[in-house]
Amino acid sequence: MDHSQNLDKFNLKQILMNDTQRKIIAVEGNFNGSQEPAVIVMEKYAFDEAFVLNICNVNTKLTKNIENDVYKSFSCVPPYNDKISSNKIDIIYPATAKHILKFTSQPIYLVQETEEIYQTITLPHILENSFSLQWVYNCLEYKSEKESIKYDTASENAKDDENIGFLLLPDLKWSGKIDELYLLAVVKKRNIKSLRDLTANHLPLLKNILNKGSAAIYKLFGIHLSQLRIFVHYQPSFYHFHVHFTYLMHSPPGINVEKAHLLTTIINNIEMQSNYYQKASLSYVIKESDPLFSIFEEKDILHKAKVFDEKKNV
Amino acid sequence: MDHSQNLDKFNLKQILMNDTQRKIIAVEGNFNGSQEPAVIVMEKYAFDEAFVLNICNVNTKLTKNIENDVYKSFSCVPPYNDKISSNKIDIIYPATAKHILKFTSQPIYLVQETEEIYQTITLPHILENSFSLQWVYNCLEYKSEKESIKYDTASENAKDDENIGFLLLPDLKWSGKIDELYLLAVVKKRNIKSLRDLTANHLPLLKNILNKGSAAIYKLFGIHLSQLRIFVHYQPSFYHFHVHFTYLMHSPPGINVEKAHLLTTIINNIEMQSNYYQKASLSYVIKESDPLFSIFEEKDILHKAKVFDEKKNV
Repeated sequence: MDHSQNLDKFNLKQILMNDTQRKIIAVEGNFNGSQEPAVIVMEKYAFDEAFVLNICNVNTKLTKNIENDVYKSFSCVPPYNDKISSNKIDIIYPATAKHILKFTSQPIYLVQETEEIYQTITLPHILENSFSLQWVYNCLEYKSEKESIKYDTASENAKDDENIGFLLLPDLKWSGKIDELYLLAVVKKRNIKSLRDLTANHLPLLKNILNKGSAAIYKLFGIHLSQLRIFVHYQPSFYHFHVHFTYLMHSPPGINVEKAHLLTTIINNIEMQSNYYQKASLSYVIKESDPLFSIFEEKDILHKAKVFDEKKNV
Repeated sequence: MDHSQNLDKFNLKQILMNDTQRKIIAVEGNFNGSQEPAVIVMEKYAFDEAFVLNICNVNTKLTKNIENDVYKSFSCVPPYNDKISSNKIDIIYPATAKHILKFTSQPIYLVQETEEIYQTITLPHILENSFSLQWVYNCLEYKSEKESIKYDTASENAKDDENIGFLLLPDLKWSGKIDELYLLAVVKKRNIKSLRDLTANHLPLLKNILNKGSAAIYKLFGIHLSQLRIFVHYQPSFYHFHVHFTYLMHSPPGINVEKAHLLTTIINNIEMQSNYYQKASLSYVIKESDPLFSIFEEKDILHKAKVFDEKKNV
């Protein structure tokens, strides 16, 4: 008799994997004690836009977990099983236009930034519009967040610390769980805006971050270099050079090929050609709401990107 | 009166975003007709390992969607609302050891492959152990999957098609929805195993894929080059050169910085240095169950990766 679709007869042997980001779980077991194993893979369905308001209806209970200013967070418990919360519900009320924009999905575009586009468009825009870096300098001078500093190269009496030193700080997105590790190495040197400024002169700094950063993380959290994803964003969210350290098995936002550059690749490229990052064409994603997008559109950069030069080098 | 946690009083104005991969939806509306907007963000909880078997219990209905060989796929409908399926359930029965391994989460490691490691370890391993490429040749010769070919450069009577031509085929993971677009460009030339083989001689091929591939996708699906993520995997899943085309706003697996290389970056690197991909150190992720992992461990490559050469270039 085929029991293979009667879950009441299923005996669980082990959980194979639990993807908490995509909400997928895979388990192994058998039906009715049979020797033949079965694999069951369950995935929660995405929200159905037509029924979004039925998800938490009169039959479901809301339990408040957090309340802070305009932010409230609830668990939604369905009536048939009070042990399993089905949805997390965050309510922002009253919400500003900025809140609404933050949660609105908007078109994104890939722009290919040549050396010339960087020098004539991106760089002037950065110099005019960047947010203040005072909060970074406050961290570096131990004026704020000093209790959250995980590591300071100065603790090892390193030579040349003002040029190759850095602090390790927790990223704002880090939950604190080791298997979701997310730290930032913030360099002490103050004139490196981004990847675009790096040359062979910075190799000692970059290698120091790779070696001392991974050694400190191994000492503090027991995670080996070979299980770390160490990378830089281009464009970064602030223009004081910093490097991201995340646990390799964790997949936070911002690790996609169109945004992230591995530190080992950066070191390799500069070793191959000192001015690699001044000369290279770098691709990155830009949101339609980004002021840079309007400038690129005005100057027809996104259109130009389409007409890739077929003649060159052929 | 504060209605801000009574969802019965919530009037939906618009859906701001619906992340079908992470199962998160954000909506804008107001409470009880108030002028002040509210944002509600709902996220499905990940599966709770302690209660995984209660998720589909005697009160829930299973509806079979697909049955093929050992694979069955169901929707699970909770009793209180028969309009919303809560989970997708796939059952593989009987399952082999290979099925179980495929769904088992396993440690992954980042290996930094130098030119020397590639030549002495990776390349001999690939030459000995690669799967047959007969299925690729069958596609290229129109012996199989010919009805699924989306585009063939031969249709334009291109010169030198055997060297710079390719076919566009749907990736197996593609659902067929345009906003989840996933196509592969499979080259006609037969001796390019991977990224490692590319030199300036291949620039006409690479630029042809970029230009003709994106032009064909624009014609067929209306998606512009600036909204495409065009990339190569290293290591690839098969050693016949192919390029991935995905819609930029869609996030399928395999787009992370430790696995994906943008085609525009590849072209840029080869233009800067013809033998870039023979000389470069390339980092990539390897699973503990991969036979290459055992070889790397035996030869202490993962350990070596830890002792990054600090002296060089300092």
